Amino acid sequence: MSFYKEDEWLIIEEGFHPENMRESESIFSLGNGYMGQRANFEEKYSGDSLQGSYVAGIYYPDKTRVGWWKNGYPEYFAKVLNAPSWTGIEIAVNGKPVDLAKAGITGFSRVLNMREGYLERRFTLRVSGSKTLEFSAKRFLSMAEPDLGVIKYSIRSSGFSGKIGFSVTLNSDVRNQDANYGVKFWRSISHSVDKYSGVLVARTLKTGFYLATGMRWEFYRNGERRDTAPSLTDRDKFVAGSFTEKIGPGEELTLLKYVSVLSSLNLPKEQLAGDALKRAEAACETGYDALFTAHIREWEMIWNSSDVVIEGDLAAQQAIRFNIFHLNQTYTGKDDRLNIGPKGFTGEKYGGSTYWDTEAFALPFFLKTADQHVARNLLFYRYRHLPAAIKNAEKLGFKNGAALYPMVTMNGEECHNEWEITFEEIHRNGAIAFAVYNYASHTGDEEYIADYGLEVLIGISRFWSQRATWSESRKKYVILGVTGPNEYENNVNNNWYTNTIAVWTMSYTIACLEKVRTGAPAKFRAIVEKTSLDTVSEPARWKEIAGNMHFPYYDERRVFLQQDCFLDKEIKPANELPMAERPINQHWSWDRILRSCYIKQADVLQGLYFLEENYDTETIERNFNFYEPITVHESSLSACIHSIIASRIGKIDKAYELYLRTARLDLDDYNHEVGDGLHITSMAGTWLAIVEGFGGMRVSGGNLHLNPLIPGKWKSYSFHARFRGVLFEAGITHDDITILNLSGKPLVIYVSGEEYTIDASGKIKINY
Amino acid sequence: MSFYKEDEWLIIEEGFHPENMRESESIFSLGNGYMGQRANFEEKYSGDSLQGSYVAGIYYPDKTRVGWWKNGYPEYFAKVLNAPSWTGIEIAVNGKPVDLAKAGITGFSRVLNMREGYLERRFTLRVSGSKTLEFSAKRFLSMAEPDLGVIKYSIRSSGFSGKIGFSVTLNSDVRNQDANYGVKFWRSISHSVDKYSGVLVARTLKTGFYLATGMRWEFYRNGERRDTAPSLTDRDKFVAGSFTEKIGPGEELTLLKYVSVLSSLNLPKEQLAGDALKRAEAACETGYDALFTAHIREWEMIWNSSDVVIEGDLAAQQAIRFNIFHLNQTYTGKDDRLNIGPKGFTGEKYGGSTYWDTEAFALPFFLKTADQHVARNLLFYRYRHLPAAIKNAEKLGFKNGAALYPMVTMNGEECHNEWEITFEEIHRNGAIAFAVYNYASHTGDEEYIADYGLEVLIGISRFWSQRATWSESRKKYVILGVTGPNEYENNVNNNWYTNTIAVWTMSYTIACLEKVRTGAPAKFRAIVEKTSLDTVSEPARWKEIAGNMHFPYYDERRVFLQQDCFLDKEIKPANELPMAERPINQHWSWDRILRSCYIKQADVLQGLYFLEENYDTETIERNFNFYEPITVHESSLSACIHSIIASRIGKIDKAYELYLRTARLDLDDYNHEVGDGLHITSMAGTWLAIVEGFGGMRVSGGNLHLNPLIPGKWKSYSFHARFRGVLFEAGITHDDITILNLSGKPLVIYVSGEEYTIDASGKIKINY
Repeated sequence: MSFYKEDEWLIIEEGFHPENMRESESIFSLGNGYMGQRANFEEKYSGDSLQGSYVAGIYYPDKTRVGWWKNGYPEYFAKVLNAPSWTGIEIAVNGKPVDLAKAGITGFSRVLNMREGYLERRFTLRVSGSKTLEFSAKRFLSMAEPDLGVIKYSIRSSGFSGKIGFSVTLNSDVRNQDANYGVKFWRSISHSVDKYSGVLVARTLKTGFYLATGMRWEFYRNGERRDTAPSLTDRDKFVAGSFTEKIGPGEELTLLKYVSVLSSLNLPKEQLAGDALKRAEAACETGYDALFTAHIREWEMIWNSSDVVIEGDLAAQQAIRFNIFHLNQTYTGKDDRLNIGPKGFTGEKYGGSTYWDTEAFALPFFLKTADQHVARNLLFYRYRHLPAAIKNAEKLGFKNGAALYPMVTMNGEECHNEWEITFEEIHRNGAIAFAVYNYASHTGDEEYIADYGLEVLIGISRFWSQRATWSESRKKYVILGVTGPNEYENNVNNNWYTNTIAVWTMSYTIACLEKVRTGAPAKFRAIVEKTSLDTVSEPARWKEIAGNMHFPYYDERRVFLQQDCFLDKEIKPANELPMAERPINQHWSWDRILRSCYIKQADVLQGLYFLEENYDTETIERNFNFYEPITVHESSLSACIHSIIASRIGKIDKAYELYLRTARLDLDDYNHEVGDGLHITSMAGTWLAIVEGFGGMRVSGGNLHLNPLIPGKWKSYSFHARFRGVLFEAGITHDDITILNLSGKPLVIYVSGEEYTIDASGKIKINY
Repeated sequence: MSFYKEDEWLIIEEGFHPENMRESESIFSLGNGYMGQRANFEEKYSGDSLQGSYVAGIYYPDKTRVGWWKNGYPEYFAKVLNAPSWTGIEIAVNGKPVDLAKAGITGFSRVLNMREGYLERRFTLRVSGSKTLEFSAKRFLSMAEPDLGVIKYSIRSSGFSGKIGFSVTLNSDVRNQDANYGVKFWRSISHSVDKYSGVLVARTLKTGFYLATGMRWEFYRNGERRDTAPSLTDRDKFVAGSFTEKIGPGEELTLLKYVSVLSSLNLPKEQLAGDALKRAEAACETGYDALFTAHIREWEMIWNSSDVVIEGDLAAQQAIRFNIFHLNQTYTGKDDRLNIGPKGFTGEKYGGSTYWDTEAFALPFFLKTADQHVARNLLFYRYRHLPAAIKNAEKLGFKNGAALYPMVTMNGEECHNEWEITFEEIHRNGAIAFAVYNYASHTGDEEYIADYGLEVLIGISRFWSQRATWSESRKKYVILGVTGPNEYENNVNNNWYTNTIAVWTMSYTIACLEKVRTGAPAKFRAIVEKTSLDTVSEPARWKEIAGNMHFPYYDERRVFLQQDCFLDKEIKPANELPMAERPINQHWSWDRILRSCYIKQADVLQGLYFLEENYDTETIERNFNFYEPITVHESSLSACIHSIIASRIGKIDKAYELYLRTARLDLDDYNHEVGDGLHITSMAGTWLAIVEGFGGMRVSGGNLHLNPLIPGKWKSYSFHARFRGVLFEAGITHDDITILNLSGKPLVIYVSGEEYTIDASGKIKINY
């Protein structure tokens, strides 16, 4: 059972549950692509909590902590910082400070409105006898003006007469709980506070980012604006304006706090303090209602192009919107220097850094739900990091422009420090190459390849060609010592997926080279010059390796073998494992996991997912039937890929069972880790399980395909998606498929293999 | 060229070299098996230094530091502590404190006298013009009374008249430089100081060991005893007695400091302070000369039974004595709770903990040079740890009394925390089993097996039988996911050495079971009961696995293959590697090392060394010829094993070349790491390279064999060794072999295959 109430558009927490505080702080997080805020209370709260304000791109390289150093490890792990806190509103009643951990509050509720993108919190404070104060706090991070955060904070008296003290604060004396050496990452630069406003400027150590947090507040009593004469606190890392107001029975006091957060990523640092104050003041002038209206208009546009409606399954309906909501809070594609951390803005874990999750899971989501430039900016982020990827490869002994993209990164440099991952989980390079193909194939934007993509492909192909070595005993090329997507195997030889994506990359690079050479000769010459490409020997070498790669194979079952020697293991289905030993990563020592056959997440099947077009259904089915039963799905990225493949081979019940494993991963906190933050990138996987899985959406040969199925439990479902500038909505029931073309140009679409053309703004309905 | 002067019995440093301070502090370390002391100055020295006083068995479990936690990792790394410092003698000249880092001293020398086991240091301090003071400091850690350390500190004036201040100190405000979290490990318990004496008691955090350091001093002026009236400093963690004496031209002041270090390992803690004082006072009464005489008598006995003489190679002569000296300083076999850390008492590195180095390298040395109980105590140490080894295995999922000895330990619990080592370098278990065989075979002490050894063997065989799994595809048993002795391969399948030693253990256990069952039925029944051994099914299972194990093999070259898939690598001789990339562990990223064919230390060859009797010379030679060229010898334990095997197959030049790689490892600081401490266990390997290698000493079928060779460069060499209670000396020249029986009973010995009997105290000479 869910801790939160089920609702189509809302996430609702009822009752005060300090034991669930961190979890709810994650669940109710707000973000707007530019910054994010966990659902920490405005008021003082001395209970356990993970305070989290994050500003995209503002990071700190924290000195590596490691037990045993290996050559090539990075010196630092770059992490997005817990930024100065802008939400503080401290309350005193008749002079006595209120601490929500100790105040014995009742009637507590928290509501996340996903349609309109705000968080509202209510509770009752009993002051004496039956005299109470009713609190409500509503906040949003503007989607229209992303530097703005706004809080509407109200107190209404039921029978109580007395004095309420307010303290409106900014605080840069914050720390990361995951700091490796307990260091505070912010240095105070300036602080000031005035009658209605205040500003703090702080600078990050090492990286030297400047961040200004400006606030302006206004105050109302029973709807009438009041001048307050605050006493001011103005010290290093902390400013506050404090004042006291009377309240009587039935009366209401309302504080509006407008905050602007500006950084040296976008503005000269000298300008930050003044601008943040001006922006906060301008927001105050615009007013809460107008700002909120602009904000929800943005959300309306998002929902109009990405909503999924599920009829007959309220829990699923709520969950998928929760996913779409958080994905859009995390990344808006406005800034090509930003990317998508596995936890987005909802916690410190994984340092807010970029993983291959972006290319493998998030990119396909944004490709299908957002304007083309959003996905393009995700690709461009990697293009910007190409020089760093080349340096990263050099550090590991590769030469001549070979590029190895980092496992984890903020600025292009590798951050991770486990040899079996950092140095060996090199398949990530393949996902980055594949993303170029995926983008071009989905959008038709071939120009991107000539402008940027090809350089990335050349760097990656160079890496593969140096990483592959000749096995004299096999008379084949081999790729030794890797970790595949299934991280429950380390340092294996000839991971089928890695070898496959390596060969695919080299072949695709050759094809792209040829296309650009003929299609854009000037650009081709520029690339050749820039990369010092030997246009004869290098592609020839790639072709040679691609044509003579060793791929492990299991003859008897006719399946691709995850790696060499995989069959030395005892192969037993995962469902024979005692429940008390699951998840195995919490119960087994690492060597035991490695020796076992159990698979953490799709590995061979990840390859069949990416390169589905190259394999017939029987092959996919044989591999699914062999691997799925020994897969323990202990990565949040696992079940969705399996669900998509199960749909692909027509196993709708299995697909649905797998879909359920991640659909409410965070809302129901399957793994007891939501307190650390939400699984943002795996949310994209869940969406894909519906749209690519049940809906069967594919782009193949430049054409859009749907092959819809519908889970038995559902009455109907519909989704929005985009293809080459056309937004459409597909509705699937057990009887028919309805497709609405929501754009101004015709859409050609193949539904279950049949070609249809839908006029601009037109609609078709197809019976099964 | 060596930094130190070559000499038969001395290590000599001339000139003051602050840049080499840590290295010399290691080289000139003293120890007596009970405690150890780096060659830190008595005087104040503000330059770089690694202060190190160590007391065997006094350790602290330092909280694990790790980048990425894995299930099964230990919470703590137990490390021998830098103990309270007892050597301090601070000097002031005319009231001005002397800091040797700043005093501009000249005529500095340090001499380690290995024959007599003391350290002497001299230097000149210019006070003004030509007026100087000549300092000398001589110290030893008594081999006769191991709790005693004695310092004789003298100052002689050349023309100077003035006042010399002395401060005789004890200091427990010390720290480990390798503390994971900067914690100081000692808490002060008590402190007191009196006219001629002082005592500090300190307790270790967590482990609660109490350590008392008591001192008594006496003072002489021109050879005449003087009463001093010291001012006393008496505070937490520090006591001192300070006094000033006049000195005039030609006069000499001498301070004698007697220290006793006692711990709660051996005495009730209440008694420690009093006893330490009493012991120091008694030492003072006995006097320096008598204590020193008793000390050198012990060393004389050690040298009489372990000296190696090399004629025609002074550097080699010095080096081998240096090794024998430090090995005997590290372990005396008096306390079965102690063991041999890879750095002994010469530094903090490796935490002073026990590794498989003990069984593989140190044990054979002590077996051949010391009384039988010394080696027996090393075995017994592991017997005491059997319950912990069983718990360690349980932690990793093994059952039913299976024992996995730790990779690194102090008290039997695992300390290490790298999964590929901690969990996978399981061959260590084999070395511990083999040590039982080695001991019994060398000494003939079969009783040990029935009393203790068999239990250990049963635990280890149970481990192997559970760790091996059935490969359906090979129809063989396999051992997956291991790291062999060659740590430049991780998580490999079917490491030949591991599989071999596993099978050997199980077979040997079955043989021992049978021997004890028939030879000591009562003990047999007790063991069966204690271990709940199923005498039918368990040995049957071991036999089944031993008889059906998979061993990788390279048909073409007819060599044992280090592991499955080894031939997928590019095999290129190590001598083709650019010198700039050697050692590869300092230049290559870890993945590159793993993918390469290069071998860190003997792996297949380690098996051929241990189990030499099972293989013919041609097999050993083929494997040596295949593996040695791809071995980079980047462990200090590598070259010696290769040297022994090269001697075994008659390649004396190769054997000598390999011997040279470790002979002066520390004296010449090949790897620029001597500052951290000396390679104590590899010193045993060097000794073995002479005695087992050149000398060809073996025990086979209960008989003693020599098959001597002599390196071309040497004129002659001789060594002492023991076999079943007989001490003998073998002298080898290019013409003949002389063997002296130094014991009171006859010795049967096979020299180059011929049997000889040497009477008690007799001698034979055999011409080649």
